[in-house]
Amino acid sequence: MVETQEIELRGHIIASGVMMQLTDRVMDMGGNFEILVFEVGKKKTDTSYARLRIGASGKEKLHAILSEVHRLGGSPVEVKDIRLVPAEADRVVPKGFYTTSNHPTQVKYNGEWVPVGSIEMDFLIVVDPDRKTATAMPLGKIRKGNLVVVGEQGVSVTYPERPREQSTFEFMHGTVSSERPSETLIAQIAKEILDLRKKGGKIALVGGPAIIHTGAGNAVASMVRNGYIDVIFAGNALATHDIENSLYGTSLGMDITTGKPVTGGHNHHLYAISEIMRAGSIRKAVEKGVVKNGIMYECIKHNVPYVLAGSIRDDGPLPDVIQDVMVAQDAMRKHIHGCSMVLMVATLLHSIAVGNCLPSSVKTICVDINPAHVTKLMDRGTTQAIGVVSDAGTFLPLLARQLEIQSQAAATGKK
Amino acid sequence: MVETQEIELRGHIIASGVMMQLTDRVMDMGGNFEILVFEVGKKKTDTSYARLRIGASGKEKLHAILSEVHRLGGSPVEVKDIRLVPAEADRVVPKGFYTTSNHPTQVKYNGEWVPVGSIEMDFLIVVDPDRKTATAMPLGKIRKGNLVVVGEQGVSVTYPERPREQSTFEFMHGTVSSERPSETLIAQIAKEILDLRKKGGKIALVGGPAIIHTGAGNAVASMVRNGYIDVIFAGNALATHDIENSLYGTSLGMDITTGKPVTGGHNHHLYAISEIMRAGSIRKAVEKGVVKNGIMYECIKHNVPYVLAGSIRDDGPLPDVIQDVMVAQDAMRKHIHGCSMVLMVATLLHSIAVGNCLPSSVKTICVDINPAHVTKLMDRGTTQAIGVVSDAGTFLPLLARQLEIQSQAAATGKK
Amino acid sequence: MVETQEIELRGHIIASGVMMQLTDRVMDMGGNFEILVFEVGKKKTDTSYARLRIGASGKEKLHAILSEVHRLGGSPVEVKDIRLVPAEADRVVPKGFYTTSNHPTQVKYNGEWVPVGSIEMDFLIVVDPDRKTATAMPLGKIRKGNLVVVGEQGVSVTYPERPREQSTFEFMHGTVSSERPSETLIAQIAKEILDLRKKGGKIALVGGPAIIHTGAGNAVASMVRNGYIDVIFAGNALATHDIENSLYGTSLGMDITTGKPVTGGHNHHLYAISEIMRAGSIRKAVEKGVVKNGIMYECIKHNVPYVLAGSIRDDGPLPDVIQDVMVAQDAMRKHIHGCSMVLMVATLLHSIAVGNCLPSSVKTICVDINPAHVTKLMDRGTTQAIGVVSDAGTFLPLLARQLEIQSQAAATGKK
Amino acid sequence: MVETQEIELRGHIIASGVMMQLTDRVMDMGGNFEILVFEVGKKKTDTSYARLRIGASGKEKLHAILSEVHRLGGSPVEVKDIRLVPAEADRVVPKGFYTTSNHPTQVKYNGEWVPVGSIEMDFLIVVDPDRKTATAMPLGKIRKGNLVVVGEQGVSVTYPERPREQSTFEFMHGTVSSERPSETLIAQIAKEILDLRKKGGKIALVGGPAIIHTGAGNAVASMVRNGYIDVIFAGNALATHDIENSLYGTSLGMDITTGKPVTGGHNHHLYAISEIMRAGSIRKAVEKGVVKNGIMYECIKHNVPYVLAGSIRDDGPLPDVIQDVMVAQDAMRKHIHGCSMVLMVATLLHSIAVGNCLPSSVKTICVDINPAHVTKLMDRGTTQAIGVVSDAGTFLPLLARQLEIQSQAAATGKK
Repeated sequence: MVETQEIELRGHIIASGVMMQLTDRVMDMGGNFEILVFEVGKKKTDTSYARLRIGASGKEKLHAILSEVHRLGGSPVEVKDIRLVPAEADRVVPKGFYTTSNHPTQVKYNGEWVPVGSIEMDFLIVVDPDRKTATAMPLGKIRKGNLVVVGEQGVSVTYPERPREQSTFEFMHGTVSSERPSETLIAQIAKEILDLRKKGGKIALVGGPAIIHTGAGNAVASMVRNGYIDVIFAGNALATHDIENSLYGTSLGMDITTGKPVTGGHNHHLYAISEIMRAGSIRKAVEKGVVKNGIMYECIKHNVPYVLAGSIRDDGPLPDVIQDVMVAQDAMRKHIHGCSMVLMVATLLHSIAVGNCLPSSVKTICVDINPAHVTKLMDRGTTQAIGVVSDAGTFLPLLARQLEIQSQAAATGKK
Repeated sequence: MVETQEIELRGHIIASGVMMQLTDRVMDMGGNFEILVFEVGKKKTDTSYARLRIGASGKEKLHAILSEVHRLGGSPVEVKDIRLVPAEADRVVPKGFYTTSNHPTQVKYNGEWVPVGSIEMDFLIVVDPDRKTATAMPLGKIRKGNLVVVGEQGVSVTYPERPREQSTFEFMHGTVSSERPSETLIAQIAKEILDLRKKGGKIALVGGPAIIHTGAGNAVASMVRNGYIDVIFAGNALATHDIENSLYGTSLGMDITTGKPVTGGHNHHLYAISEIMRAGSIRKAVEKGVVKNGIMYECIKHNVPYVLAGSIRDDGPLPDVIQDVMVAQDAMRKHIHGCSMVLMVATLLHSIAVGNCLPSSVKTICVDINPAHVTKLMDRGTTQAIGVVSDAGTFLPLLARQLEIQSQAAATGKK
Repeated sequence: MVETQEIELRGHIIASGVMMQLTDRVMDMGGNFEILVFEVGKKKTDTSYARLRIGASGKEKLHAILSEVHRLGGSPVEVKDIRLVPAEADRVVPKGFYTTSNHPTQVKYNGEWVPVGSIEMDFLIVVDPDRKTATAMPLGKIRKGNLVVVGEQGVSVTYPERPREQSTFEFMHGTVSSERPSETLIAQIAKEILDLRKKGGKIALVGGPAIIHTGAGNAVASMVRNGYIDVIFAGNALATHDIENSLYGTSLGMDITTGKPVTGGHNHHLYAISEIMRAGSIRKAVEKGVVKNGIMYECIKHNVPYVLAGSIRDDGPLPDVIQDVMVAQDAMRKHIHGCSMVLMVATLLHSIAVGNCLPSSVKTICVDINPAHVTKLMDRGTTQAIGVVSDAGTFLPLLARQLEIQSQAAATGKK
Repeated sequence: MVETQEIELRGHIIASGVMMQLTDRVMDMGGNFEILVFEVGKKKTDTSYARLRIGASGKEKLHAILSEVHRLGGSPVEVKDIRLVPAEADRVVPKGFYTTSNHPTQVKYNGEWVPVGSIEMDFLIVVDPDRKTATAMPLGKIRKGNLVVVGEQGVSVTYPERPREQSTFEFMHGTVSSERPSETLIAQIAKEILDLRKKGGKIALVGGPAIIHTGAGNAVASMVRNGYIDVIFAGNALATHDIENSLYGTSLGMDITTGKPVTGGHNHHLYAISEIMRAGSIRKAVEKGVVKNGIMYECIKHNVPYVLAGSIRDDGPLPDVIQDVMVAQDAMRKHIHGCSMVLMVATLLHSIAVGNCLPSSVKTICVDINPAHVTKLMDRGTTQAIGVVSDAGTFLPLLARQLEIQSQAAATGKK
């Protein structure tokens, strides 16, 4: 018995490649399809529309296929309401709950399409029947009685188009290579940052301690001072070595201006932590004049917020570090929503953590010396990502200089 | 004005290379030395003794040199008592505090040599004047009034000898290479594990989720079942994917027996977490018969403790995960002290965390596909470390088989 | 002025993704298109057909777009004959010559479609007017007077379908990851080899010296002995260390059975080369009983040909090494044509060399400990490639065992 | 029966660490030793002297130990003449021939110490009885009747001291890390180059095509133009893409100034090769005005020689490429002898080839994005090596600028 179901696809279904992915996937899974309507947008900015009849032998097979089709944005032509089941207890949710992608999502509730707020990868959808709103929430936050969406019925995903403007993100998307013209790429990234800035977009930096070890601390400090960074996500190590550098001129005991280890330098990171403990916090240490420069100093001086998330490998840690990782995750989330671009440099752990919380529309730039790390970060599901295999110690100073050169050129109208 | 100081070195100062490091370092720093006594042990097991007069122009230079000499185990011939200063407040410690290495350490207190307990890298030394004991403690745990050792005076470090028995650790120590006979090496590691077992040594496993993704979960489960692992240190991901594999036969949604993605598989890790939340804990899920096999199952069944430390990138997390990283660190420490060997597989984060807490005498085996990770782990200061650049998915099954073959051969007296 | 051109696409244009790539590319380049006909094959094995009208502002832009469309297999509906220009002198060819892809290609000559023989990436097409044949040839082999195809007119490329049978190559294609179930994957590769064998397909091995260093020499020797390898491509190092292992039990001076360096072992590779120089060749050394086992021994004994290509880093080299790289390339080519599968293990140089010569229909399996190498090899343009990030020393013995187990199971009908 | 032998060690045996390596090695191998004389140089520049009695149970064991001791520069107190055996035929040499290290070596011939010329790793020593000279030669060049040194008797190696001047090479030697202050390191390397230049030292560049792909071609061209490079070792790819860049502004078809692929760009490297074939050689193409800028152009204009060694993966190749790898090796050797520094950038193959030919006194700087490559190059036996894990596209432009800044500062006496 061949079972069939009509489904619809809307949007930039050619540009995004989703039309082909979908038909391909159907055939891979042993189903077949008939194209009923296929209206292709003639211009770049036009959307397209397709209606297909999906067929498979047996209900179970058809269901499996439709589940895949759903993830790609294909919805049944006639959409029924979502199914809602209340949570039995805190964190005890109905089986078969729906888990979100990081793409814009709507649910059909009482015959109306309701957008899902706070969308993030691998969340559940909870509906508030009084306010008629739908919100994405992590499993750990579901409370007894929350109405949780079960199954895919009534849920519609808008698969994002690939960016089509002639931006760096458009042609670089998804590629990772160490064989590209580095200075050209850095100049383009600087331009993207300045363009985003002009439009009022927010930019986050996720950074690892290698930024300090490789001598790029000054470059990042200048980017904070000049207003190119709106929030910093990092761990104990970045902040500690930044402050070590400020207090002793060293990072991990190595003199940053000579590259040579300093006698007693192995003490410096602990001494730096101790000084902040003595002051009470990084802010107080800056206010008391203990810390006089560096990335953290500029954050305090320019009211750039930071979230320092604890990790099992921390020494100390600094009083500013949030030791409970779930509390830290929530602190991170508060700042992430609203960001248009995230610059991830030399940290896999914190970059993945931030990446997990990003809606698919946020632009990301991943810089790491390790190509496997860059590849891993690129696979996180943003639709506009640039991967750069490079050295933080050369990349960031060159980027800071480009930002200066281009912004001055713009100011004097030369460009 | 040339200032001089006589110092002594004892122990396996040739075998450890420390005699040469010391004289070399003195000259590098612009000092000079005279060998007053040099008694070389004639046999492998003999210790040697050297007395040198260190000279440098000016007190400051001499002090810098003696600080380096101290780290290498060289002590002034006439040793004065340690200097102790009380902590002003909780976590507010006297400036110039002494920070420990991970080598055995003694302090001279009231003219007596007192061993320092709980030694670990980058700790402070606190003396209890009533009980006449000295203990290494992390900065964050110092309480008001604790007597903290300041400066190097009165502190003596015993630089560990390189292992001299013809063990795998002896000849492999410190080298990292992907160009070694893999099966030979695995057989030797199996032998080391069995030898250690016979002597009653404890073995810890630090593992990342790639163990499950690469299909090596069964191998580790069998190692737990057969008593080769005494404690597991990991994060939310290893446990989640292990349970996902047990419940659904997948890891990250990929069928472990076919390597193919499964429809709806992207839900599985969240569904797995949800089932454990429903049961209340991993132990309860095992007891209720929800989880019926896998690494965590064997841990519960064989009372092998585990510490699951939270991380900022966690989904869920499982109820067993310790979300506060400092609490997790303490939990880890309780189990680490007493281990003779640590096997670190496919996780940089947790391996560094464990490595930070290890005394220098513990043997470590680091297995990772990324040579840079292996090198980083090898630099953590243990004196007996083997680095293996390999794939968890082939390494662990081969190791589990070797353990079986060799232990059976031993049992039947064939070997 | 909008210029237009009708083009056609045939074949598995959905399954291959080429339909979408093409429309996407046209819009990226500022062109537009109208779908005139779109006949989708309903079954997996059906081919599809599309006719599109491509438009762009101005001839130059249209030409640029059509050039891209051409590379994807789109041909003008009305195809004119190719343009042929004779080479002025040896290796001096007409400007604007056509360069081939590694996909099946036809040229329209005197109104007839003529298939292009010996297709390989980056070759020129030469037409023999007497025999009415077209042949792909490297630039360096063009001789004065050869008729060389200029421009894309009259050339048609068949973009290969993605394999649709449920083979390992189908679902693994193009992915590179160290996070897959290794033993499962090895079992599937063994199955592919055995299936290919049954159909009479030829298999090539491209190997680096790490095969010997990691102790996998025996595994490869057994694969040669058991008939799973039809030709070996390698360099001086693989053969030298294989023979060193046979003569002295060492590789790079390290005892393969213990993993320990042997006194005087640094001489062994030179002594091995010297013994072959004394015998005259590897074949003579085997015949004289000097070399009694190993990969090269099995090649001689079972008449498996090998091409040892010289490289600038060679010691010696062995008399069998072809020192002129272009002569070596030709030797390689003779054996490559006819192969259905190439197994590339632990050598980037030789694997790229072989990959350059492969038609896009040949299956490739790339195994390397370095993920960047695997990615680089996967980008070489075959349509059926599996990348495995693993250790030769564990991968190859496990593969050899799987081949044995599965072939025995097949023989006894158990499977 | 304990057999004993007195041996001597001279030179910077403490600074080099060789004294400890030697005693350590003796004990590892089951021997013992007595220190008879140990005169330590008091100043950095003083050499030391030690005489030891080595003992072992049985002649064979003692011989094995003395062989190791020999490699470390320890010679019997009473040294006998070398043993010489004539080669039976071309390339057929006596068994047990001595193979050289890359350290300065002398042979005792007729009671006199004769220095060995043209020393290089893994060569044989041939003595000319008429001219009383000794020369290191590769196995493949030995001719019938040549008198070849057999065994270690009469051969003395001078183990090089570690450099003790406060140069970058001194403190960086042997370490490979991506966690060092990059710009500091680049400034120091620039200073080393300028210092070497002042003393008249020769500098070689070994480079891979990623130099062009990453947009660093201009930087290298300027370094050639400004006289910082005396010879270039590379392959077909570097030269081809440099010329492609000069002719078409692309590298591998990617526009270097925009980073974007160019329509028809896949043809460019072949078109570039074709243009050079048409001209006849790179020199002729420069003279005819075909090639007007780039690295190869500057080499021709400033008479900087280059050796382009063929490889099995070459397309084309360019007429300047030496296709026979042994001929290429000899061409390389002619230029290597006399170099004081070698800069190796983004090529493992050519860097190893050059490294194989270097005496241990030559300084090397290895730059690669892949840490495993850097480590491999550092292991090649030079005593002054700096490893930099960085991106050619950012490293080289920053180096070229530093050279300019520092040389101008020196010229104006500001520094």
